[in-house]
Amino acid sequence: MIIEVASIKVTAGDEARFEAAFREAVDVFRQAKGCKGLHLQQCIEAPELYQAIIRWETLEAHTVDFRESELFQQWRSLVGPFFAEPPSVHHFRIAVERADF
Amino acid sequence: MIIEVASIKVTAGDEARFEAAFREAVDVFRQAKGCKGLHLQQCIEAPELYQAIIRWETLEAHTVDFRESELFQQWRSLVGPFFAEPPSVHHFRIAVERADF
Repeated sequence: MIIEVASIKVTAGDEARFEAAFREAVDVFRQAKGCKGLHLQQCIEAPELYQAIIRWETLEAHTVDFRESELFQQWRSLVGPFFAEPPSVHHFRIAVERADF
Repeated sequence: MIIEVASIKVTAGDEARFEAAFREAVDVFRQAKGCKGLHLQQCIEAPELYQAIIRWETLEAHTVDFRESELFQQWRSLVGPFFAEPPSVHHFRIAVERADF
């Protein structure tokens, strides 16, 4: 399992509209082959900064299958209008499994 | 619920030892008031970069209760020797709840 972290800076004042668009975009990812789920988090220290945390079965499910699909265009047309700059994207593997207390 | 993201750059070659130390540190966080769980993830594009993702009931459970406790010293003595530079820490709130596919 691969975790995509997309760091997104939103135009000031567009936070609520961006969150609503992201909520709509959940159904786009639901249709994406190899996508296991996602959530959106907002930085407390810098509220214009968000991280979309998207879980994929493999790296290629994101970087090849999704990015080359029509679904990627749908995602970008929903949320792209609120981006203040191009997002930065990194991928992570789990190094120490999640513990819940 | 608050998500702490601690970005940690590890000295090259120390990755396996850092992961083993983090695994030991899970029991430190288990004792921390207000800590709900954690995991460690490693960046695929830059393997010396890790993110400790730590969930807290409130911001203050991390920034006040934990940081001023003996447990913080235990955590730092376990993993600190492998830090290439001081970690950068941000906190996030959930903006769009997690969906699982």
